[in-house]
Amino acid sequence: MAMGTKAKPILYSYFRSSCSYRVRIALALKGVEYEYRAVNLVKDGGQQHFDEYKQLNPMEMVPSFVVDGQALTQSVPIMEYIEEVYPQKPSLLPKDPLVRAQVRAVSEIINSGIQPIQNLPVLQYVGDEKKMEWGRYWIDKGFKGLEKQLQQTAGEFCVGDEVSMADACLVPQVFNANRFKVDMSQFPTINKIHQNCLNLEAFKAAGPTMQPDCPDDLK
Amino acid sequence: MAMGTKAKPILYSYFRSSCSYRVRIALALKGVEYEYRAVNLVKDGGQQHFDEYKQLNPMEMVPSFVVDGQALTQSVPIMEYIEEVYPQKPSLLPKDPLVRAQVRAVSEIINSGIQPIQNLPVLQYVGDEKKMEWGRYWIDKGFKGLEKQLQQTAGEFCVGDEVSMADACLVPQVFNANRFKVDMSQFPTINKIHQNCLNLEAFKAAGPTMQPDCPDDLK
Repeated sequence: MAMGTKAKPILYSYFRSSCSYRVRIALALKGVEYEYRAVNLVKDGGQQHFDEYKQLNPMEMVPSFVVDGQALTQSVPIMEYIEEVYPQKPSLLPKDPLVRAQVRAVSEIINSGIQPIQNLPVLQYVGDEKKMEWGRYWIDKGFKGLEKQLQQTAGEFCVGDEVSMADACLVPQVFNANRFKVDMSQFPTINKIHQNCLNLEAFKAAGPTMQPDCPDDLK
Repeated sequence: MAMGTKAKPILYSYFRSSCSYRVRIALALKGVEYEYRAVNLVKDGGQQHFDEYKQLNPMEMVPSFVVDGQALTQSVPIMEYIEEVYPQKPSLLPKDPLVRAQVRAVSEIINSGIQPIQNLPVLQYVGDEKKMEWGRYWIDKGFKGLEKQLQQTAGEFCVGDEVSMADACLVPQVFNANRFKVDMSQFPTINKIHQNCLNLEAFKAAGPTMQPDCPDDLK
């Protein structure tokens, strides 16, 4: 590599992983170029369990984001890092500490309150027979609380009228909700924000079907 | 209230809630005074489901942190807020963005990767008969990955030799691990950090048995 140039960051991602999808949205909003490396979570017994990948991500999950040879893990910390080192607009977090806390709270309702309970390892443990019902139950329950939370904070987006990290969490969770056939007619606020996000180019470009590892028959 | 004075923040907490415990540690490390309001998660069908509390916290969970009449929810966002508005030492996050990302990653491995799967609503859904085995399985699995992660970052504490938000997440999760009878002899790095934390007054003061809502027979 020539002196003075920096390697592009690398995103280890799976097209359908909602946590990878969040980071892809954040990178697209910021216009950050990166190298995409696919980790297939179901092929070969799960490529996230390969020795080489475990070195990067001891929890054996996606995404991982590698910057200057250093691996960062966990989607929300990766988005916080992106906000800190790529200050260009749009900001993933607002400036006021109380409003930042609201953006982070919506993000965490999804990141820690909903998604982990319907994540792949839990579904595998619950078993094929029960996994659809399990996933639907927990997303439905979580969205009932989230809808009320968003009624307190939403404008055009999750918190006010500026897109933020919270929206980068919401859209992939709606994608999961649809996979699990959650009745989305219960959630008008979530639906409105979701539609406003999907009108933005960054959200379109980050979508599962736009990724190089999306199988042709799902495009 | 006299003009020019500010009301103390209010923490809605349950003595045994690991997410409340994290925020109590953060507040104790910073030396922030606050009013403690107990929310009993099991009495009366769960006081977190009371109408008055649901207004503060639509997800019907603890903790909630009320500042100037505004309710903040979700433990990690509350700790981020505390760091932003109470800049006194110790810092809950280091300054370097890469190291901050490491602290946040360890925090999220616990906050989103382990705790939600063994949280009260999930255990209630799984049922009394299976809940001990379920909780033990997921904490054990999560700690196996976390131990490897910490081997890469730990010094005296989770990331290097300075206490941080990650430690405020770790100690309450070890408390849960012990409740679920996880074999902690597998995790020497976690154990070392845990002991270093418990040597600090702030961690002692924030412990479950030190809270006003801890029943006498558990003290």
